[in-house]
Amino acid sequence: MSSITEQEVVPATDELREQVLGAARGARAAAGALAVATRAVKDATLHAMAEALTSRVEEVLAANAADLDAGRAAGLTQSLLDRLALTPARIEDIADGLRTVAGLPDPIGEVLRGGILANGLETRQVRVPLGVLGMVYEARPNVTVDAAGLALKSGNAVLLRGSSTAERSNTALVAILRDALTGQGLPADAVQLLPCHDRASVRHLITARGLVDVVIPRGGAGLISAVVTEATVPTLETGVGNCHVYVDAAADPDMATRIVLNAKTRRVSVCNAAESLLVHSAIAEALVPQLARELSTSGVTLHADERFAALAGVPTVPATEQDWDTEFLSLDIAAKVVDSLEEAIAHINEHGSGHTEAIVTGDVRAAREFTARVDAAAVMVNASTAFTDGAELGMGAEIGISTQKLHARGPMGLAELTSSKWVVWGDGHVRGVS
Amino acid sequence: MSSITEQEVVPATDELREQVLGAARGARAAAGALAVATRAVKDATLHAMAEALTSRVEEVLAANAADLDAGRAAGLTQSLLDRLALTPARIEDIADGLRTVAGLPDPIGEVLRGGILANGLETRQVRVPLGVLGMVYEARPNVTVDAAGLALKSGNAVLLRGSSTAERSNTALVAILRDALTGQGLPADAVQLLPCHDRASVRHLITARGLVDVVIPRGGAGLISAVVTEATVPTLETGVGNCHVYVDAAADPDMATRIVLNAKTRRVSVCNAAESLLVHSAIAEALVPQLARELSTSGVTLHADERFAALAGVPTVPATEQDWDTEFLSLDIAAKVVDSLEEAIAHINEHGSGHTEAIVTGDVRAAREFTARVDAAAVMVNASTAFTDGAELGMGAEIGISTQKLHARGPMGLAELTSSKWVVWGDGHVRGVS
Repeated sequence: MSSITEQEVVPATDELREQVLGAARGARAAAGALAVATRAVKDATLHAMAEALTSRVEEVLAANAADLDAGRAAGLTQSLLDRLALTPARIEDIADGLRTVAGLPDPIGEVLRGGILANGLETRQVRVPLGVLGMVYEARPNVTVDAAGLALKSGNAVLLRGSSTAERSNTALVAILRDALTGQGLPADAVQLLPCHDRASVRHLITARGLVDVVIPRGGAGLISAVVTEATVPTLETGVGNCHVYVDAAADPDMATRIVLNAKTRRVSVCNAAESLLVHSAIAEALVPQLARELSTSGVTLHADERFAALAGVPTVPATEQDWDTEFLSLDIAAKVVDSLEEAIAHINEHGSGHTEAIVTGDVRAAREFTARVDAAAVMVNASTAFTDGAELGMGAEIGISTQKLHARGPMGLAELTSSKWVVWGDGHVRGVS
Repeated sequence: MSSITEQEVVPATDELREQVLGAARGARAAAGALAVATRAVKDATLHAMAEALTSRVEEVLAANAADLDAGRAAGLTQSLLDRLALTPARIEDIADGLRTVAGLPDPIGEVLRGGILANGLETRQVRVPLGVLGMVYEARPNVTVDAAGLALKSGNAVLLRGSSTAERSNTALVAILRDALTGQGLPADAVQLLPCHDRASVRHLITARGLVDVVIPRGGAGLISAVVTEATVPTLETGVGNCHVYVDAAADPDMATRIVLNAKTRRVSVCNAAESLLVHSAIAEALVPQLARELSTSGVTLHADERFAALAGVPTVPATEQDWDTEFLSLDIAAKVVDSLEEAIAHINEHGSGHTEAIVTGDVRAAREFTARVDAAAVMVNASTAFTDGAELGMGAEIGISTQKLHARGPMGLAELTSSKWVVWGDGHVRGVS
């Protein structure tokens, strides 16, 4: 690319920077080969990766045990250690994930639109890989393999910048993946692990314009915000979910209770979990006591406004202004009584993070108004927020859930890891002056 | 959005910043109304805008005359004055552009994919507006109206930051557009002109995260690079075109000459014009003398490597390393003899800007290899680079040509100004634990 040359991004003063940019150059070279790899070769490689993970499980477990020992010595919380831990069963699940990706259709080459112009030119817009992906993520080592598998299937090279706490596990996993790549005649540099002990490696990755095509951060809000704000490479923002359930005046109370409970308590640490509950005042008296009791019985702490608290019949804590903007990721929910659909929509558009918003209602007009006016990646009518998920929505697998509007919104599967190219065939066609 | 609140972006210390962010807040409010405006209302507004431009032409011409006077006094080049100048005929063309957009299908609400899940959930991914667009552009006042029309049709509000040399013209145009909006019951703040005398207004626009959804720079390489690098709002990079024509060994010399001449000389100031010429050595002796003579006769200066110069038979200037990376936008072309298809592809992928690349060949294998391996928004086989254009490719109108890979690549029409939203309807559906 002439506009941003390597010379501009490589002052060659910093060893770590050279290391990251060297990896990026290797990835760019590998991307050229991956872009034209056939589906047969890519799928064979995915299966070879899965087989190798299974046959070399001891290698991975030994590395993971060393990470866990170091983590315990460093005083990591039990929850972080749980996220870091691999078992033979978990590794088999990870391998199965690769096999699932192998079974998905190849997105590359798909014709998105096209036709024959009046002058006889044949046009096609086809899917092509993005090129080089950067992933910045936290403790879970499964992301290393999941991301590599999705990148390979979509014809992209990937630079992985995982957590330092998972360094040994990630190193073992990446070595296995790279061996599988070369075993099938693909360049090993299609999958590379970047240094993870210095925050600077993230900065070098996210500013490597011209070498890296997109960076995807996966992790907590702080990580995502830092990457998205400091990056000069385009980013795909993922995952922060301050999801609401709004129970409309015309809701069925039992359905509302079932949906709120599922959305809040199914898995509290995921981004599609509900964090806020809005109840229309016309149904509040009939619904809130039952709903609050069930939530409380499930261990949920209600951060309630005064009207909700007065009806709850169980202990609540007062909602603060901050609560409406908080992604708890815990057994907490902010709860409020609203007087209209309009108030609910305004509250959601002000406080939501653009992830998933749900309405429970029997009223068609309210449902249509809500789905039209709420600005989010996914809007559910009479369904749990938990359904915002690539596998649930039929994408087969996902690399994250985008909460931005550009390029991809909602669960990102293989298609979201692609770009496009116009291919035009003519017979000496030239264009007139007008 | 809870992750980036207005409080974080508005320290309220700077009057200009407050002005820009105030406009952005107005645009965001207007975007809510535009997102649910029906096609009928949007098209009626586009026609009303066109009528008003025609009926208030004197107002626009008077403002434009004042801009031209000021421009002449400030010593603007004749070429800049030409770009700035409006005439009754040009204004009628601009109005016709709005009528064309009114005739295009409404992208909003289009169902992109969807179906019924195994559990009975009905899913649809539908097109929705991006929200608030920012446009940063140079002298041509027609961009003001074109961008406003495309934004309106795609349900987006737009903040226009034009050139200070066109301020009076743009002010007159925007006043007319805003009157047409309110006349049809839409918020005037859907189209706003930002202050244009201070570069800082650009900075405030491109860092207004949470208020502005995307910024599109249109203009020279310097403007685009500055916007893309400094922006924290997502950007759509447009327009730099270092386009190549590669004449393969198996090309028809007459066809090659016709295509190269058209690609270079049809309009030299546009981004799809050819800037570099690569000729396979096997055809060089037969082709170069004829091609060089025709280019020279058309006034083109050849920046030739030694082998090309030796065959040219007309005066050339020696190509510098810089020439291979230069978007001349003038009657200049860099010319080089290469020894293989592979060398041509490698040269293009190193020096091209990812805009449009063309091959002239009768060899199917070479054509397929070139289209598969060249990394650009558009790849032409036996056709001029000039066909990379929204109107030519059937999009009806374009807001620019993207040279990035994320979100949109190549000409951007109405669909490229949209995002998507999953809308899921159920009947009390909750998700299992797995």
